Formats: sequence, C-alpha cells, structure tokens
Amino acid sequence: MEITDLSRQIEFIKEVDKLKYILRKTKLINSNRNENDAEHSWHLSLMAVVLADHANFEIDLLKVIKMLLIHDIVEIDAGDTFIYDTQKNHENTEQEREAARRIFGILPDHQAEELMAIWEEFEGQQTNEAKFARAMDRLEPLLQNTSNNGGTWSEFGVTYDKVYNKKKVIKNGSDKIWEFAEQLINDSVESGILKK
Amino acid sequence: MEITDLSRQIEFIKEVDKLKYILRKTKLINSNRNENDAEHSWHLSLMAVVLADHANFEIDLLKVIKMLLIHDIVEIDAGDTFIYDTQKNHENTEQEREAARRIFGILPDHQAEELMAIWEEFEGQQTNEAKFARAMDRLEPLLQNTSNNGGTWSEFGVTYDKVYNKKKVIKNGSDKIWEFAEQLINDSVESGILKK
Repeated sequence: MEITDLSRQIEFIKEVDKLKYILRKTKLINSNRNENDAEHSWHLSLMAVVLADHANFEIDLLKVIKMLLIHDIVEIDAGDTFIYDTQKNHENTEQEREAARRIFGILPDHQAEELMAIWEEFEGQQTNEAKFARAMDRLEPLLQNTSNNGGTWSEFGVTYDKVYNKKKVIKNGSDKIWEFAEQLINDSVESGILKK
Repeated sequence: MEITDLSRQIEFIKEVDKLKYILRKTKLINSNRNENDAEHSWHLSLMAVVLADHANFEIDLLKVIKMLLIHDIVEIDAGDTFIYDTQKNHENTEQEREAARRIFGILPDHQAEELMAIWEEFEGQQTNEAKFARAMDRLEPLLQNTSNNGGTWSEFGVTYDKVYNKKKVIKNGSDKIWEFAEQLINDSVESGILKK
C-alpha cells in the first residue's frame, strides 16, 4: 500500500487495538474481572461527558475527551503502572515518553504532534483540561474499589493516607466531585474496607 | 444518599460499566478474542479523532464522539445484534428504545434528553455527524475481519454482496474512507477470505 495519511492512520488504528489487552489492577464494578485500558479509557471519556458541568472552570470538553481516549496508550509498550506502586514513579517515565513517540509517531506528522502534545499536557497537569481529566482517572477506581469491598486497597494493603493523597487531586478539577469522593473515602474507613 | 444531579450521574456511571460484558461477534485484530462493546466504543471514538479530516463535510467532532461513546449502551438491556442477522432488524427496535429510556433516564433530565436525542440521531442517520459516526462503526469490523482470515464472514458464511451492502454506507460519511474500504473488500475476495 502506498504510504498516505490514511494508510498511516489505519496502521495506528490497528496498533492501538493492543490497548484492549493491557490489564489494570482494578476490577470492574461488583466484579472479580480486571479492567483493561481500552474499557477504562471509554469509561473515563463518558464520565467526562456527564460530569463536565461540575468542573471548577470552563473546559474544552473535546480536548478532555481526546486526552482520556489516549492517556494510557503508552502502556501498550510500557505496561500498566499500579498507582500505589512505591518502586516506580508513574509520572512521565522516559519509557512512557518513548512509547508515546513510537505509537503517536505512526500517524501523519501533524496528528502525531497534536496527540503527543495532548498526552504531555495530561501528564504535566497544568491546564484546566488536564486537571479535569485527571479527576476522572482518579474517580473511576474509587467507584470500583468501594463496590468491591475495598478492591485493590484490600488486595495490596493500601491504607487511608495513601488513598487520600492520590485522590485529593480530584479537587483540582472539581470541588463538587471531590466533596463526593472525600465522603466516599471516609465512608470506606467507617465501613472497614479502607484501613487507617 | 440524597438524590442530586451528581448522585444520578454516579449511578449512571456505575450502570454503564455493564457495557464491558457485552460481547460482539467480531474478534480483536489478529485475535481469537471477542471484542466487547466498551472497547469497541473507545476504538471508534479514537478512530473519529484521527479520521475526522476525511469526512465529506464539516462535522462537530465532539458530537460524533458523544454518539460513538453511547451508541451501543442500549445493548446492556437489549444485547448485541449481529449485523448480518437476518432474523432481527438492527435499526432501532422498540426493545432498544426502551433500553435507551431506562439507561439514559438514570441521568438528570436535561442530560437524559440530550443523550437520548444523540442516540436517536445516530440511529436516524440523517445528519452529517450520524453518517460519519456510522462510517467508523462499519470500518472497524472490516479491519478486524480482514486481519482474521475473514473473521465473522468465514465463521457465519457471510458473502460479498451482504458485506458490500452493509459497508457501502461508509461512503455517506467519507468518500475517501470508502475508497479504502471498497478496495479492502475487493482484495478480500481476491485473497479468498470473502466469498462471492
């Protein structure tokens, strides 16, 4: 096939299919089945659609969704990093950046640059869109773990302080959603599924 | 919990998690593993992001993505309908509309109405956004089946005429993508993975 913009886009579309095999540590709602990154990315994107009005500021929803659709694509090469892993810093490892370059680089140059920039923006956490997208990414596993009797918190012995510390960035995206999330964390301590 | 807009949105977010269990007939790229509706919806949304410039007309990409994120949610209640099923008409069955009312109805009224309208717009296939979204929905399984030695075509004995007939609506969304898809269908006949 002649190399055209379309042929590069089709190659990218086939390549990212692999995201469906990358398993996260968290399980689906009321379930023992691990979530994969593609499902996760879909769920966060739809969450952004329905929760956008609770953002602390005006957001460009299309950009938030683009971020969420692609935010984990680097894990095709780099693998999933458990958020409470103390050995490995999740933020923007060089391995992840290399993966982003390879995978987005399959696309025509202008699109590779756009998606690379959006991915860096998400990781950088400086813009409103990045903060709101992150809030979605932190909220979903909270809903999953509380539905699963503690889920990864129980499974990996993660305590209140660590959970609170990771989740409080939700507030940077939405005070309203953080109010709900904080309550859910406190309720989890009270019900015994999250240890102090 | 007091019933607020947010509590209804959270309930909706938990409910749609079930889409991750709805299996399609098509298998992932180069794979024997069935795709589920959540992964599928993620993939189509990302395809729309990278292929939008090939649309025959200006499109509201955010609306296209909202359509694709929600287009199969009714299958939580109604189940997946195989596109080449001759017993059941896929277009907008009453069972699907009932499912849409129930599931979108979990949301605050204004959002339920918005998503119901977007779902109806997709099913109605009259607007540019609906046509382009449909093109994505028809392209993805073509990439999957051609990667899997015919995939569902071989498995269920689907012939060229039926495939061509279902796929040609891609042209309503994008002449350029249809040109590629038509070539892929013709190549499949030539290589023997699709029977005339």
